[in-house]
Amino acid sequence: MTTVAAYAAPVGKAPLERTTIERRAVREFDVLIDIKFAGICHSDIHQAREGWGEAIFPMVPGHEIAGVVSEVGPGVTKFAVGDRVGVGCMVDSCRECDNCKAGLEQHCTGMVGTYNAIGKDGEPTYGGYSTHVVVDENFVVRIPDGLSLDVAAPLLCAGITTYSPLKQWGAGPGKKVAVIGLGGLGHTAVKIAHALGAEVTVLSQSLRKKDDGLKLGADHYYATSDPKTFEELAGSFDLIVSTVSAPLDFGAYLSLLRTGGALVNVGAPEEPVALHLFSLIGGNKILAGSMIGGIAETQEMLDFCAGHGIGAEIERIAASEINEAYERVLASDVRYRFVIDAATI
Amino acid sequence: MTTVAAYAAPVGKAPLERTTIERRAVREFDVLIDIKFAGICHSDIHQAREGWGEAIFPMVPGHEIAGVVSEVGPGVTKFAVGDRVGVGCMVDSCRECDNCKAGLEQHCTGMVGTYNAIGKDGEPTYGGYSTHVVVDENFVVRIPDGLSLDVAAPLLCAGITTYSPLKQWGAGPGKKVAVIGLGGLGHTAVKIAHALGAEVTVLSQSLRKKDDGLKLGADHYYATSDPKTFEELAGSFDLIVSTVSAPLDFGAYLSLLRTGGALVNVGAPEEPVALHLFSLIGGNKILAGSMIGGIAETQEMLDFCAGHGIGAEIERIAASEINEAYERVLASDVRYRFVIDAATI
Repeated sequence: MTTVAAYAAPVGKAPLERTTIERRAVREFDVLIDIKFAGICHSDIHQAREGWGEAIFPMVPGHEIAGVVSEVGPGVTKFAVGDRVGVGCMVDSCRECDNCKAGLEQHCTGMVGTYNAIGKDGEPTYGGYSTHVVVDENFVVRIPDGLSLDVAAPLLCAGITTYSPLKQWGAGPGKKVAVIGLGGLGHTAVKIAHALGAEVTVLSQSLRKKDDGLKLGADHYYATSDPKTFEELAGSFDLIVSTVSAPLDFGAYLSLLRTGGALVNVGAPEEPVALHLFSLIGGNKILAGSMIGGIAETQEMLDFCAGHGIGAEIERIAASEINEAYERVLASDVRYRFVIDAATI
Repeated sequence: MTTVAAYAAPVGKAPLERTTIERRAVREFDVLIDIKFAGICHSDIHQAREGWGEAIFPMVPGHEIAGVVSEVGPGVTKFAVGDRVGVGCMVDSCRECDNCKAGLEQHCTGMVGTYNAIGKDGEPTYGGYSTHVVVDENFVVRIPDGLSLDVAAPLLCAGITTYSPLKQWGAGPGKKVAVIGLGGLGHTAVKIAHALGAEVTVLSQSLRKKDDGLKLGADHYYATSDPKTFEELAGSFDLIVSTVSAPLDFGAYLSLLRTGGALVNVGAPEEPVALHLFSLIGGNKILAGSMIGGIAETQEMLDFCAGHGIGAEIERIAASEINEAYERVLASDVRYRFVIDAATI
């Protein structure tokens, strides 16, 4: 056991404060990572404030972790001291079920979250708002040279969450892809969809971030507050990726799809939405969900992003600014991801 | 113009009664069909009773038409007098749009319904509860020898409506397919899914029709009124086809899908349903819609059904029994499709 510094919410809905936590000793297949950067994801706030139900406290959030390996267990074969690595939303799974065998560890019922979870050893897991973390090598990915650790960190959640559905649903040359929302997830979706060769449209509440959107790789940018948007774009998209957690008028968005098109949700409102099934039946439309991605796919995503010069757009902050950053995330006042410099913890 | 006998609803919500209508003279590409049988689809009742909104009256319902060609226009190349043919839910489309070019005429915005629609000539269309119908040859399909006209008629709507999503979503050997509801659509879904090689489960409110379901080709049969059904079948299906128009608890049914599985709706409640998007995100689930099928696919379906000895299970009725049959359809008291003998009109 090693005592390390971290920022934690001591109880639900409380501000985060500096504290210390115990990290387990490095086991046979573990790597010890010196954390360099950790992204702030909206879901950190949901969990720290128990918006998704009862949680485990004290809570050290953070599942967008980038750092450098500083120690490896005797059985480790994939990583060596000095390697640049990342950890995303999970640190373990059962490794035996159909999902695990198919590389879909995120859907394993035994999946262990990077924080706010209990590991197989019965101990709570603590996330990336910390100086160090110990993780089984099978849940660690390599951050390619050429991708800076600070802009890589958010890819471990925001990047894979958008890459996975874009790939699965065929974003590529000749395809028209819309991204709903230009936030932490949306801006990586735009970059990745553009790099995949798709014609990309941002659907945002207003035109406030239009210049940004076009610079990030969007070909078109429309305000959804303007009813003309829905007339003009009717029946035009092969794929729409919704990155927002506000309850949408799904009938209106489904009408923007071509016959057989898909609207995939990676953000989700906490409450149920009203859906008229005729909006799916007319035009053989598809409404789907997608949750992060598996470990192998996360590595594939990082390699793809490095190859296309894609990192997140970030604002680096000191750990002392975390609580303020949370308020700014809730106010959509970040372009486009806060990343904590772990040297300040 | 030719005056022919038909059964029509004179105004909305009124009983159907015997009357005469005018059929157009056979044009260059038209075929005149002596109707032998016409199926009664639940949507006939929806439309005759204006459950889907304002409709055109007098209305001659019927879009499950089987008959014999008795005259062809001079430009007709696909059919000859004496051919056994069918007409389904549409009798024309624009023939120029992307949907039409892709064989998805049912999604063409210029699609002309077999009844309760206005044709390109500005005249209302009248359906199959009649002795004759005149249809452009491009919207007529061939009923293979070996498939009796009476059991073939319902395939023109119920058959293609279930065949299309079963094919599109991969029903076949090694796949577990569930069918919600064992009615007019559901019983053809069971037969077709079984013939495609899938392992088929019926999910019905009760076990009342269990013997029938197993005879039709189902491997398993569960009552959805029993909560244990949802525990036992959790995560087990690759594909679920919902044929019911009652509002379902979609969260419960989506939980029966494997990772990446699809629930496709061909029946639809008139009111919006409440959907929690987390039930799609967890497990990368898919909720989709499907509306009948294109003309080429309808021919493919008929050939498939003939090759596998599949016809609808029917109760033949005289035209004078139509109103009584409507009440029995609404009471789910039909095994499994009423077919009007056109000789009695």
